[in-house]
Amino acid sequence: MDDAKRLLDSLPACPVETTLTLIGNKWQALILRDLLSGTKRFKELQRSIGSISQKVLTSNLRTMEAQGLVHRQAYAEVPPRVEYSLTELGRSLKPVIDALWNWGESYKASLRAQSK
Amino acid sequence: MDDAKRLLDSLPACPVETTLTLIGNKWQALILRDLLSGTKRFKELQRSIGSISQKVLTSNLRTMEAQGLVHRQAYAEVPPRVEYSLTELGRSLKPVIDALWNWGESYKASLRAQSK
Repeated sequence: MDDAKRLLDSLPACPVETTLTLIGNKWQALILRDLLSGTKRFKELQRSIGSISQKVLTSNLRTMEAQGLVHRQAYAEVPPRVEYSLTELGRSLKPVIDALWNWGESYKASLRAQSK
Repeated sequence: MDDAKRLLDSLPACPVETTLTLIGNKWQALILRDLLSGTKRFKELQRSIGSISQKVLTSNLRTMEAQGLVHRQAYAEVPPRVEYSLTELGRSLKPVIDALWNWGESYKASLRAQSK
């Protein structure tokens, strides 16, 4: 497909940089973390991430949708319901989130040991 | 130690967020990537990262030094020589960089397969 070729050509040569262009900001990584546990509505996601504004969450979700990481499903109900989930590509980033989790966990454990 | 306790208290509860506060921007991850292969002088680092300005590289190196990830060694020579290397804590982030590398590599492989 031409789309894949164009996308491939637009990516940095280095694989580390490639991944960072997709989850290169903190919010995108936290959205991934929270959608890995399952589909969420906008308000649920905002609550689980914590200190994120509606505007910033909307803009990051749109970016991730365009990158093929997040799927947005709107239901024609009253009031309208919108749910977000990870695509297969989004779910494939689990090992990256796991690596971030594991390092953060052991870093905090070593600080706890030092502060005793 | 009180320092470790203070640092620990300042970190987010979530381990993923903790790691992101330390390598939460693209430049810091790329500095890590390039120092994992060994000690580098400022100019070498600037060249290997690519499109980073002197100002942005200096500011990120200072942040990473303050966080205990990077060690700065100045030699009293003429002209003065300054080298940067990873601390033990910095090197411990290798699995995170590896996870970023592996995902980027397989993502590009899948795009290559699609564009054939």
